[in-house]
Amino acid sequence: MAKDTRNIYLTNIPLEEAQQKYFSHFPVDRNFSTTEKVSVLEALDRITATAVFAVSSSPSYNAAAMDGIAVVAEKTYNASETNPVKLKLKEDFIYVNTGGALREPYNAVIMIEDIVEINDETIEIYGGARPWQHIRPIGEDIVEGEMVLSANHKVRPVDIGALLAGKIQEIEVYKSPTVGIIPTGSEIIDVKEPLSEGKIVESNSSMFASLVQHYSGNATKYAVVKDNYELIKNNILKAVEENDIVVINAGSSAGSEDYTVNVIREIGEVVIHGVATKPGKPAILAKVKGKPVIGIPGYPVSAYFVFEFFVKPLLYKYNRQSIVEKNKIKVQLTKRVVSSLKYEEYIRVKLGRMGEKLMATPLERGAGVTMSLVKADGIMVVPQQREGYEAGTEVEITLLKPEEEIKNTIVSIGSHDIVMDLLANQLHETNDQLFLSSAHVGSMGGVMAMRKKECHIAPVHLMDENTGEYNISYANRYLKDEEMALIKFVKRSQGLMIQKGNPKNIKGVEDLARENLQFINRQRGAGTRILLDYYLSKKEISPSQVNGYEREMTTHMAVAAAVASGTADCGLGVYSAAKTMGLDFIPIEWEDYDLLIHKKDLDTKEITILLETIKNPKFIKVIKELGGYTATEIGNVVYI
Amino acid sequence: MAKDTRNIYLTNIPLEEAQQKYFSHFPVDRNFSTTEKVSVLEALDRITATAVFAVSSSPSYNAAAMDGIAVVAEKTYNASETNPVKLKLKEDFIYVNTGGALREPYNAVIMIEDIVEINDETIEIYGGARPWQHIRPIGEDIVEGEMVLSANHKVRPVDIGALLAGKIQEIEVYKSPTVGIIPTGSEIIDVKEPLSEGKIVESNSSMFASLVQHYSGNATKYAVVKDNYELIKNNILKAVEENDIVVINAGSSAGSEDYTVNVIREIGEVVIHGVATKPGKPAILAKVKGKPVIGIPGYPVSAYFVFEFFVKPLLYKYNRQSIVEKNKIKVQLTKRVVSSLKYEEYIRVKLGRMGEKLMATPLERGAGVTMSLVKADGIMVVPQQREGYEAGTEVEITLLKPEEEIKNTIVSIGSHDIVMDLLANQLHETNDQLFLSSAHVGSMGGVMAMRKKECHIAPVHLMDENTGEYNISYANRYLKDEEMALIKFVKRSQGLMIQKGNPKNIKGVEDLARENLQFINRQRGAGTRILLDYYLSKKEISPSQVNGYEREMTTHMAVAAAVASGTADCGLGVYSAAKTMGLDFIPIEWEDYDLLIHKKDLDTKEITILLETIKNPKFIKVIKELGGYTATEIGNVVYI
Repeated sequence: MAKDTRNIYLTNIPLEEAQQKYFSHFPVDRNFSTTEKVSVLEALDRITATAVFAVSSSPSYNAAAMDGIAVVAEKTYNASETNPVKLKLKEDFIYVNTGGALREPYNAVIMIEDIVEINDETIEIYGGARPWQHIRPIGEDIVEGEMVLSANHKVRPVDIGALLAGKIQEIEVYKSPTVGIIPTGSEIIDVKEPLSEGKIVESNSSMFASLVQHYSGNATKYAVVKDNYELIKNNILKAVEENDIVVINAGSSAGSEDYTVNVIREIGEVVIHGVATKPGKPAILAKVKGKPVIGIPGYPVSAYFVFEFFVKPLLYKYNRQSIVEKNKIKVQLTKRVVSSLKYEEYIRVKLGRMGEKLMATPLERGAGVTMSLVKADGIMVVPQQREGYEAGTEVEITLLKPEEEIKNTIVSIGSHDIVMDLLANQLHETNDQLFLSSAHVGSMGGVMAMRKKECHIAPVHLMDENTGEYNISYANRYLKDEEMALIKFVKRSQGLMIQKGNPKNIKGVEDLARENLQFINRQRGAGTRILLDYYLSKKEISPSQVNGYEREMTTHMAVAAAVASGTADCGLGVYSAAKTMGLDFIPIEWEDYDLLIHKKDLDTKEITILLETIKNPKFIKVIKELGGYTATEIGNVVYI
Repeated sequence: MAKDTRNIYLTNIPLEEAQQKYFSHFPVDRNFSTTEKVSVLEALDRITATAVFAVSSSPSYNAAAMDGIAVVAEKTYNASETNPVKLKLKEDFIYVNTGGALREPYNAVIMIEDIVEINDETIEIYGGARPWQHIRPIGEDIVEGEMVLSANHKVRPVDIGALLAGKIQEIEVYKSPTVGIIPTGSEIIDVKEPLSEGKIVESNSSMFASLVQHYSGNATKYAVVKDNYELIKNNILKAVEENDIVVINAGSSAGSEDYTVNVIREIGEVVIHGVATKPGKPAILAKVKGKPVIGIPGYPVSAYFVFEFFVKPLLYKYNRQSIVEKNKIKVQLTKRVVSSLKYEEYIRVKLGRMGEKLMATPLERGAGVTMSLVKADGIMVVPQQREGYEAGTEVEITLLKPEEEIKNTIVSIGSHDIVMDLLANQLHETNDQLFLSSAHVGSMGGVMAMRKKECHIAPVHLMDENTGEYNISYANRYLKDEEMALIKFVKRSQGLMIQKGNPKNIKGVEDLARENLQFINRQRGAGTRILLDYYLSKKEISPSQVNGYEREMTTHMAVAAAVASGTADCGLGVYSAAKTMGLDFIPIEWEDYDLLIHKKDLDTKEITILLETIKNPKFIKVIKELGGYTATEIGNVVYI
């Protein structure tokens, strides 16, 4: 693992320039990807390689357009209300159904509603028929030889109907581009293998394969390749042979095990290594035997963006389709965002509608945080020449979800608790038009978001150190000009989460000052941290005496995970988190975890459904099963 | 075929009322459609039936976030620019790669860029490390037990990545709803069978199956069922047994062969028969053994709309998904639209951008015109209580294509010729961002559309009866206040299209007055009709002397098809149409078929590409191969 095998020097080319330069290496002409004939019945979503012309007319004969009788128009001219004309079956008329053929001498149809039967053989009409009335002439819909579809058209269900109506059995379409996906890395394991320290479950390849499927390509996932120069080389060569595009995952940063770039230099050409985007910087854009080979970084968020930047446009290009810009909207930013002049940054955001305004709150920006992609409602781009945006700025967002869904979302900002996830789940089950989105910034963050009108509800658990009462005094202090209410939610058991069997023999908060203990804390503004500070001061312990006081996690579960892994000996958190991670628990306080809300919002349709949902016995049962929760006042409203 | 087997009486219930009433018969609870477990690798686009929780944390250990060295932070505190600290390999530090595990006693990572190697064993650092810096703590992305996806969520590629990262192998999803599709009708044949008079190619079932696929269901197409009461009954019963939803095509109007409604009355319940929409009125909404059975009319456009009105919402409901409203936009109507108070009417429209305004032109409204669906850019709804809209009204349109595509479309209104279809095809091939849409309203219609600024180009072939010159005098007369130009396009051979072998011994226009001849004409305003009138007046023949003068078709191909079918003996049209339909042809005139355009538009990007395209030798070759065209002046611009 000598240091000099690392590739520290990457270029820093702006995205658009990189795309133009790279894609120009792969011109697409009619001969590039070959075409194939497919049955019209299997042509859905395929792309026509040539214009398609009708083989037969539709209808292919003159057809009755109505149920009724076929007549010779000239024999009916004299009919009127006052002078009805009698017609004889088989002499003057025959019955026809819609779609039936009209043969000589008949040249018009009279609707069944407009005739009066005199007997089985005779009818009477009260008006004349124009020649060719109520007849669909041959070719009314499609005429033989007419162009039904042009080339480079993605076949839709209605197109399939029209192709068949034109009696077309087969059409020529482009072969779907094929993408070979090679995961690399000695640390990568399959999801079915047991997980151990240093091992990571392979997930990017499956995400890539799914993206390829969505973009009308065919993906082949190759087995994971260990970090070995020859193995990687042989796999790339094989994949290039077998596919139109090759994607290699991981191995594109400057790390010591990153052979990819050197392998490609040997067998092909590295066109660009390093793009001025975050995430996505260490992308390798290469060409091997005339085909695109793209090295994608291993962090899932980087992986997603590099795929979108470079593989998606190639798939569209090879399919002769242009990428339709996703919906963009202007929204107001709730938080200041700082970015670097070194790159264009792609930031995932949550969106919410507050009154008539849409507001965007940035999510975690780490390239390793897959969940930020899962939770994102949109993407905000900070251009390279900007150092960021101030809170309150209007910014443009590319939507990842339908705008309608975002408008039907209750925005929650505040303290995190698993009951909020369960509520989101239950709410959407109760009403499939309604969504709940939660941002976790701690209780004080929730109060502040409420003050800035950035959320509909704020889950809080804030103890007044003087009265021991929860939440109300904070609302009175920070939202004193607003008419507020509290929706009572749950009481939950807070306590010290400690390792199974309590090896460090912890009894309570008084032990946190011990030299041999590692504590793990919550972030500033979290209700749990405020609770800790209250107990520390009661026990006259200063924060500087607590080892690990400065190490912050943003959720109960993250604290519990740290304790479970042995990184810390204990942390403060809720019983349910300790239980989930198999930890022991020393209860300290039953606290009120409530939803702060503007009084005027209580009557909205959305909050009405939320109130019904949390009062539903089924939901209460789910909460109680978690352990560490009571719900005696759930759904009660307290006006402040 | 007695008249009393017909069901003439249908109800006329407004769409929304019909949907509410009908769907209320099929409540969806957790037990309705059963669920199944699928591998995460096969879960793309499936819908979660339960919330999904992470099995393991990601990362599952404390991992280096950077390539560099792992250190004990406390040993580095004193390092500074002026006071570097030396560290010994394996004593004070080890090398780590991104993703590598951090074990005790190491608790921080220093980036490779920030160290200086003294020798193989020793490095120097110039700054201290904070504890836990550049470390991804266990669970940074996903914490064991965390909710990764909520229930009723459609799985996206990024979700698959997150599920695998959370070490989830399988998830519970709803079984895709199954739809049984039964085509009925003795006149229906498969696309592979030979077409004869009275026969129609089965196309709706395949369109339905494609729609089901797009709406995440599984379709089963049954064989075509002849119009026989017992056969239809047995097929419905079998399909109800085997599927969640059954669709029967045709047999839902009041026609004599329409057994469906009577069959359903015997084996189940007809909830609604007849909805106040056009197209779609004769829909049958029924329930058999608790399952929805929907009778859909046979006309393809009606079939499409009834499917969208009633089957699509059921598929979404069974998949626990809500239908996202398609994009709606406000546009200006170019033509008056008259509708009836009897129904809500769904009108297909072409859209085009003229300057900053989007304009909508209604397409053919016949329920049998599949091509109106293929060509449509959007749908305009005329509510039941309105009799229509005046030209110029602002109306709301539901988009069927991306707005971007519509904005990149050159709008052509005027005379029809197959070269316009070929041009559309070639233009899109030249530039995949650019589209050409053609409405066929005849040459005079094109001039009028140009005057109302409804189109970018108007293909015209208008002979001045006084001078014999084409097109220019019409532009001067009708667009005299505008600066116009003509893009010279093709000369084409117009003549009489007659049956193969000329059985009626037609020599020229002078024969059209013959008693034993049936002529077929073009619509008023068509250049071809103006040409006919010119020749008739030259030969001193009055229109009333021409049998069939009043029978109008709107395209050359439709006229040719009518002659080919024997409905008429001759019509006036272009050579290429006669050739396509295997007709004989008596040439009469080489006429100038040109593109009228506003002079100011000649320099736009779109028209520049159009000019390049038509001058391309490849395109000229395609046109010449049609026969009956010359292209000596193609692409020349004449200023008027």
